[in-house]
Amino acid sequence: MQVQINKEFIDKIKLLIDEKNDRQLLDIIVDLHPVDIAEVMETLAMDDAKYLYLLLEGDLASDVLIEIPEDDRKRFLAELPAEVIARQYIEYMDTDDAVDVLGELPEDKQEEVIAYIDDQDYADDLSELLTYDEDSAGGIMAAELVAVNENWNVQTCLKEIGRQAEDIDEIYYVYVVDDQNKLKGVLSLKKLIQYPTQTNINNIYARDVISIVTTAEREEVAHKMEKYDLVALPVVDTEGHLKGRITIDDVVDIIREEAEKDYQMVSGITGDVELTDSVFSITKARLPWLLIGLVGGIMGAFVISGNEHALERIPNMIFFIPLIGAMAGNVGVQSSSIVVQSLASGTQNLQSISGKLLKELGVALIVAFVLASLILLFNLIFKFGNSGTELAYTVSFSLFVVVVFASLFGTFIPLFLNKMKIDPALATGPFITTMNDILGLLVYMLIGQFLF
Amino acid sequence: MQVQINKEFIDKIKLLIDEKNDRQLLDIIVDLHPVDIAEVMETLAMDDAKYLYLLLEGDLASDVLIEIPEDDRKRFLAELPAEVIARQYIEYMDTDDAVDVLGELPEDKQEEVIAYIDDQDYADDLSELLTYDEDSAGGIMAAELVAVNENWNVQTCLKEIGRQAEDIDEIYYVYVVDDQNKLKGVLSLKKLIQYPTQTNINNIYARDVISIVTTAEREEVAHKMEKYDLVALPVVDTEGHLKGRITIDDVVDIIREEAEKDYQMVSGITGDVELTDSVFSITKARLPWLLIGLVGGIMGAFVISGNEHALERIPNMIFFIPLIGAMAGNVGVQSSSIVVQSLASGTQNLQSISGKLLKELGVALIVAFVLASLILLFNLIFKFGNSGTELAYTVSFSLFVVVVFASLFGTFIPLFLNKMKIDPALATGPFITTMNDILGLLVYMLIGQFLF
Repeated sequence: MQVQINKEFIDKIKLLIDEKNDRQLLDIIVDLHPVDIAEVMETLAMDDAKYLYLLLEGDLASDVLIEIPEDDRKRFLAELPAEVIARQYIEYMDTDDAVDVLGELPEDKQEEVIAYIDDQDYADDLSELLTYDEDSAGGIMAAELVAVNENWNVQTCLKEIGRQAEDIDEIYYVYVVDDQNKLKGVLSLKKLIQYPTQTNINNIYARDVISIVTTAEREEVAHKMEKYDLVALPVVDTEGHLKGRITIDDVVDIIREEAEKDYQMVSGITGDVELTDSVFSITKARLPWLLIGLVGGIMGAFVISGNEHALERIPNMIFFIPLIGAMAGNVGVQSSSIVVQSLASGTQNLQSISGKLLKELGVALIVAFVLASLILLFNLIFKFGNSGTELAYTVSFSLFVVVVFASLFGTFIPLFLNKMKIDPALATGPFITTMNDILGLLVYMLIGQFLF
Repeated sequence: MQVQINKEFIDKIKLLIDEKNDRQLLDIIVDLHPVDIAEVMETLAMDDAKYLYLLLEGDLASDVLIEIPEDDRKRFLAELPAEVIARQYIEYMDTDDAVDVLGELPEDKQEEVIAYIDDQDYADDLSELLTYDEDSAGGIMAAELVAVNENWNVQTCLKEIGRQAEDIDEIYYVYVVDDQNKLKGVLSLKKLIQYPTQTNINNIYARDVISIVTTAEREEVAHKMEKYDLVALPVVDTEGHLKGRITIDDVVDIIREEAEKDYQMVSGITGDVELTDSVFSITKARLPWLLIGLVGGIMGAFVISGNEHALERIPNMIFFIPLIGAMAGNVGVQSSSIVVQSLASGTQNLQSISGKLLKELGVALIVAFVLASLILLFNLIFKFGNSGTELAYTVSFSLFVVVVFASLFGTFIPLFLNKMKIDPALATGPFITTMNDILGLLVYMLIGQFLF
């Protein structure tokens, strides 16, 4: 089971594929977890991966299909007729996975595939699930769940659970509904095992069940499950009817993706790239940010050349151009990312925007004072190239203004974006950072020109 | 249950605390989830929060204690005698939570508390769990689990599970062990319900159980559970004896924390701060990075003043100082963060360091060529302040060299740190970024001085 997937293992697989030794290949492969099979396939050449995959059947084939990268799956399914997709793959999947895969097909092909599905209930579930926005609770949930009626006793429940669980991998919670299928509560398997068979479940199920509506955004789903340490979350419609459940493994993926999105933004990468991606994909993900940086650099050149009077008055100002630019950008990113992280972790928000800006002003004044004092001290003592005190005062005062301004700007922008329902992480990205750099430079040049 | 915690609710709580209306306070509070009670407490003044908390008892009191911030909990427990901590709080907790709380006490007090615990098995479990490194699988796991012997039948198992589950909130998996308590497999509750009571479980349990050793690092735990979509992971010692289990809710916290650590590093914040923290904490988290940036800026000043010959030859070079500095830093952060993210997501690593550097060289050459060409074109056409072609060539060639160098440096450093078992995210932090800035500036000045 827990085979080490190393170079030797991959080489062995490659050799067996070259020899077309299907029997031995299958012997090795079927013992692997589907995730590991997908990982092996990723290290193989396209044709070899496909050869290996086509040896698989039934549950295993569809489990692996879900784990391979979306692009590869799309390419593979595009070549297959709807009937094969339906009967050899979709029918073996849980509804949530099936809907993810169907969502990657063109719309007309989706309908064609669903038409070929023999189990009518399953087909109906898929059609309904496809109507939800894929980033909503309804779009993530699976229709598979175990539900019992509030009027049943333990024995009936156990029998019903055994029947319903036929198609379900794991039962985490048994949901309790009324005659109209409205969610009433949750029943633990533990209690079912512990209580006498004639007990009416009305007396033992928990009524304080946490649920979410189908229209909730996926971030809200993740936040709720994380906050309350839930393994599964029941999804209801606006009238309270039980429609599906979301399991924690999907939420772990959401948390990871959200965190990665923010991380990519602040480190200047567009989209999801990894070391293993192609040179072309990595280049494509990196160039946009750098082009914005390039434009910012050119604008910086304009700011300096347009304010040459400052440099004529205090030539040694050029020494501290890198310092002012870097500090403006850094302070802005710090401020914005604290806001972004607070919003992402869903910290309860009982404070107004102006309250937050006021607190940030406090932080900014302290930080700016410390930094400006240090650089003033340095310049007064060191006197770069026999600079007069006007350089010291110009650098120090500029730094103070730049730090305070970039702090407030960096705090306000993400809060404002969030209020406008735009991703606040944008504020940590290239636009705002570059803008802070340039504005910092402008402040420096203007102060050098007109003050001291 | 799902009360809206808004300003009105908090005001009502405050009023009731002022009136010392304990009965009505309790009525409201006991309906809340422990996480929500902790959240309410965080919005109250210290004394009010304590007053509210001391109304709680038993399970609820210990559940809330786990949810409040570590600093508050430490302060609260420091005032209590060991006997009270043991009998009123620790005894109500699961072993993993109890160990977390005990770990925050001084060592002599830990032993004192454990000595007061009446349930000897539970006390022994705690003593053993405390011996593990808190960042290892052993340090995160709980001793509570449900295990059955491989030789039992379904009926015996059901009876035993009912007994063992007494102290456990949720059963996700039933583990199967041999007479020596060695982990053999896993049994789903579903199967126990579906099969006749006389079935020997030897015929129905799954042998391919994924487990982890007590000494594994917590990142490895998180990676394994995430990769294989596990809700609980059994922990074994090096001989394979079943020691405990780790549940997904703990792992979600680990994933979140790891992502936040990386994010804080790249955005220049030390430690975990949020908007709701005090002005002092936020300032403390931000100043270190900025001080490094300040030193970097001063070093930049030295680099420029030490190479003034370049500026005497080509005075207009100063216009592009911000561009070179910014691009060096950005390219470096991009490269490093791609490595950091790849390492964090645990992408299988079948490529050597030199292979990765070679690929990065490909990306770097393309990116550098595009950027250098664009700035060359711009400078040749625009001719800033009647600059000659030497400015155009100097800027362009410098940018090319700086981009290639920063890319390779940015890729190598985190890979190297990782190999040395140091957190690779350090490479995205202030030191390396500042170093890239300064080296970029140096390259620019040297090229301006000696080439073209």
